[in-house]
Amino acid sequence: MRFFCGIVFQVRILSSDIKKHVGKTVKIQGWLHKKRKLGGLNFINVRDRRGLTQVLIEDKDEVEKLRGMQIGTVLTIEGTAADDDRAPGGAEIHGPKLTVEVPVTEEPPIEIDKPIDHKPENLDTLFEYRTIGLRNLQETAIFKVQSTVTKSIRDYFYKNEFTEIHTPKLLAAATEGGAEVFKLDYFGKESTLAQSPQFYKQMMVGVFERVFEIAPVYRAEPSATTRHMTEYTSIDGEMGFIDMNDLKSFLSGLLNYVVDEVWNEHETELKRWNTTKPVLPKEIPTISMEEIHEKYSKANKENSVGEPDLRPDEERWICEYAKKNLGSEAVFVSDWPASDMKFYHKAQADNPKLADRVDLLFRGIEITTGSMRENDYEVVLKQLKDKAGVDPKDPGFKYFLQAMQAGMPPHGGFGMGLERLTEKIVGLKNVKEATLFPRDINRLAP
Amino acid sequence: MRFFCGIVFQVRILSSDIKKHVGKTVKIQGWLHKKRKLGGLNFINVRDRRGLTQVLIEDKDEVEKLRGMQIGTVLTIEGTAADDDRAPGGAEIHGPKLTVEVPVTEEPPIEIDKPIDHKPENLDTLFEYRTIGLRNLQETAIFKVQSTVTKSIRDYFYKNEFTEIHTPKLLAAATEGGAEVFKLDYFGKESTLAQSPQFYKQMMVGVFERVFEIAPVYRAEPSATTRHMTEYTSIDGEMGFIDMNDLKSFLSGLLNYVVDEVWNEHETELKRWNTTKPVLPKEIPTISMEEIHEKYSKANKENSVGEPDLRPDEERWICEYAKKNLGSEAVFVSDWPASDMKFYHKAQADNPKLADRVDLLFRGIEITTGSMRENDYEVVLKQLKDKAGVDPKDPGFKYFLQAMQAGMPPHGGFGMGLERLTEKIVGLKNVKEATLFPRDINRLAP
Repeated sequence: MRFFCGIVFQVRILSSDIKKHVGKTVKIQGWLHKKRKLGGLNFINVRDRRGLTQVLIEDKDEVEKLRGMQIGTVLTIEGTAADDDRAPGGAEIHGPKLTVEVPVTEEPPIEIDKPIDHKPENLDTLFEYRTIGLRNLQETAIFKVQSTVTKSIRDYFYKNEFTEIHTPKLLAAATEGGAEVFKLDYFGKESTLAQSPQFYKQMMVGVFERVFEIAPVYRAEPSATTRHMTEYTSIDGEMGFIDMNDLKSFLSGLLNYVVDEVWNEHETELKRWNTTKPVLPKEIPTISMEEIHEKYSKANKENSVGEPDLRPDEERWICEYAKKNLGSEAVFVSDWPASDMKFYHKAQADNPKLADRVDLLFRGIEITTGSMRENDYEVVLKQLKDKAGVDPKDPGFKYFLQAMQAGMPPHGGFGMGLERLTEKIVGLKNVKEATLFPRDINRLAP
Repeated sequence: MRFFCGIVFQVRILSSDIKKHVGKTVKIQGWLHKKRKLGGLNFINVRDRRGLTQVLIEDKDEVEKLRGMQIGTVLTIEGTAADDDRAPGGAEIHGPKLTVEVPVTEEPPIEIDKPIDHKPENLDTLFEYRTIGLRNLQETAIFKVQSTVTKSIRDYFYKNEFTEIHTPKLLAAATEGGAEVFKLDYFGKESTLAQSPQFYKQMMVGVFERVFEIAPVYRAEPSATTRHMTEYTSIDGEMGFIDMNDLKSFLSGLLNYVVDEVWNEHETELKRWNTTKPVLPKEIPTISMEEIHEKYSKANKENSVGEPDLRPDEERWICEYAKKNLGSEAVFVSDWPASDMKFYHKAQADNPKLADRVDLLFRGIEITTGSMRENDYEVVLKQLKDKAGVDPKDPGFKYFLQAMQAGMPPHGGFGMGLERLTEKIVGLKNVKEATLFPRDINRLAP
């Protein structure tokens, strides 16, 4: 309460605190979320940032104030907090005095108080009315979880002495990718949008040793799939003076930490999606690609042995296998062929035909690729030429090579899509469902 | 230490921990940062993520290993930790065995072990060799501070129950600004890069009540100044169910929190820049624009009375005034003319000729504008037409208006450039000095 010139102003009480004020007069503020009649009694639910408050309205004049008022109407309500086990949070408001702060007279164009079915044919409507549909608590839940995913990932980086960096997304030239790059006019010159902070984070290992960035990246992906978007939030980490075991330990710890934090904070939200807490051992198990091919081929009467990549069905199968047999819903896939390596990747020291790389699969899909980077300047030059077909004098690589020549320790890192991780944690089927305002070839608004 | 098959591997010890291991054999890893001879003795400094370790090399064979090795050479060193008050951290390494992990034979193109003078004519060289020059501890300091600025701002948002959001930077149309917008081809359609998340954060108040985002924004600023860049990191916050006093309290608390956290964490780094801890009262004082004009005109024999904006010199002067007379290095400027309001701003309830807005000046410059937003749908429509000259049927405003019509509480917020805030905290003179890889009309690399 604020005291001013002898007048007592009620301070706003939030939904989850009503129970603490039972028997007292409280003021609440929020959005009309639901109106209903139950046995001749008028109830409304009021939504605030923490959830819902149930209000029982008996006075006819008060009921009258809500005539024609639709969901979304902004209300201030003063009334008495009362115990009621059937109300959200175990308490409700009785004898309310209502003030309509902002009337809403149009019905919402999308369901607000019942879950929206996320079947594929509904998604376009979901995104078209996103600014209002997100008020549905089922939708809000996804992004409350996502906020904590991001927070806990940063916590984990900080605990491990990473410095946060902000690298530019406006670049002079496309470097990593080929065709899938957005181009723009930059005062008469051509500029491209960053597809990843790969080179910057490697260069910054030479400065800070351990760096991370969580920021948007852009891919001019010309197809609309359940797995790709043209803009997403990339979680990038890079560390110096490590080896692959350190990187795997780091990623194991990271995923465990995120899952624990999210389940601690958001059991209510996760229950809305009937999702279970992922089973993860302290160290996520590693299986080589060849072993996966063999196991999969044996169990499924298929033959993937010798293939240089995993089939999507193999990714799903090995995750099921690991869940049943290794007590882990995540698995590292090791021993990728060096022939498919990016030029900045490093081959294994004792077997140069294999890349020093792991893919982390989680609940049926790859959520990140972790790799050791080549830190020998001469080898980087050679791989740039051999693997990327780039002349080392290409100005697009000037600064990266400058840094590589200035002394780079053994280093490695990973990049992970925030939206895909959120999708898997919540148990969704399309990465766009875990994106506030998704972007693909067909969608550039809202 | 890791034990494996009876062999004892030394675990790497970091520079700041050497003192704890005095008398023991330790292993350190890092970059050769400096070589020097002192009274016939060879010393080197080795840099790791925490700072420097001094190593005394007496053995001639060990000295020989460093012949031709330049700054940046990656080293592993095993030796005995020994007390020495003259060494950084109060301890150094004696009797070292050196391993050159990655030799560097080229001299660095920019000073690494002495401070680089940031005078304007040096900045271009500073940025050209950024990837290496950042290894200079004077430069590193700026970005260690910046990492903590960002972290502490997020902490403050979390403490106040904000949800972090990620809004798209690829937009269908320019909305807020006019000419200063980057355009790109989006699969045959025109797209623009976001100049701010303004509309998204307001729309998301209707969902989460309190939201924040820290992400890049883009301005096609066609001039090279000390205050502007084409890409910067924008710290955006927006809150529902608040008034201007709440917003000012929030910003006062935020700036105090950041300054305290940064000084707790980074006294060493801040000392490198001879900067002092800003004096800030718990609640930053507010002075109206007209009062500033009057005070300034009186003290400087100028006449700014009645002007609709502050002169840059007035901004500096009032900050000096507030520091001397009000014990505050920051000041809120209130009572801006409503005639200059953006269409989404709100006029003061009791004086519609004035905007419900404050600018926060800090150490001579505006670091943020905070304002209450118009939340009455009909007034938004009118202001959009009158102030922005936009037809409410313009598709660029469709979703924003959709959200405004769905019930928006009183709300307000602010946007702040991370780099400018860092600049002022560290005591730099150009916002680009506080940017890892600055972008302006002349610079798009590295």
